[in-house]
Amino acid sequence: MFTLHDDLARDCVEIGCLTLCRVLLRTDANYPWLILVPARADIREIHELDASDRAVLIEEIATVSAAMNTEFKADKMNIGALGNATPQLHIHVVARYRNDTAGLGPIWGAAPEKSYTPDALADMETRCQRMLGFD
Amino acid sequence: MFTLHDDLARDCVEIGCLTLCRVLLRTDANYPWLILVPARADIREIHELDASDRAVLIEEIATVSAAMNTEFKADKMNIGALGNATPQLHIHVVARYRNDTAGLGPIWGAAPEKSYTPDALADMETRCQRMLGFD
Repeated sequence: MFTLHDDLARDCVEIGCLTLCRVLLRTDANYPWLILVPARADIREIHELDASDRAVLIEEIATVSAAMNTEFKADKMNIGALGNATPQLHIHVVARYRNDTAGLGPIWGAAPEKSYTPDALADMETRCQRMLGFD
Repeated sequence: MFTLHDDLARDCVEIGCLTLCRVLLRTDANYPWLILVPARADIREIHELDASDRAVLIEEIATVSAAMNTEFKADKMNIGALGNATPQLHIHVVARYRNDTAGLGPIWGAAPEKSYTPDALADMETRCQRMLGFD
């Protein structure tokens, strides 16, 4: 049975579900940052998914990436499936700007986490939900 | 017309072609590190590819990731499409170990590049080509 890993539950708020993936908002205000988690038990790697799930996954990545690119007027989108510390397969989709906290570098480890205020977090959740048609 | 970006040509050696992607070996001996470059002109983002190309891409990512996972007995595979500095779409596929140079962290910026000796580079090229059936 699929359950969300504790690390992801702690660091994110769930904003909705696509066909395959749960969509999480990472609660780090440094970047517009969503995380897709395929709702399948015991999967650590993209290559462990069935091919039919992979076909859905890449379309969900593309949908979320395109939507964030437009909504947040990103200079570049970053997509990553790392999972070195949190073993449950999850895919980062992050809107980047030339002048963001990490500049042109990767975001991981680049800057201390920045909290959202409760109002800003609620606004960001609503904005992402509308962007993805969850409302 | 597709041509490989100068940054990728400088930092990698091409070891073969899949249906969609050129396969490059990143010449940094810190990690077994391949890079997939869809042979399409003027594409920066996964969401800019046609859906039919994306379907091929995710299978090529899975093929290379599964092969490296087995060949290099990785603890974890890392997949990333960043492109903050090099705008041509390219997907990193990296075999990670708990005790590698970057430990549990992301590889980007974690350690100075480590050169292969010419013999070690030739061996690694041959190993990756065999692994992917290019020989």
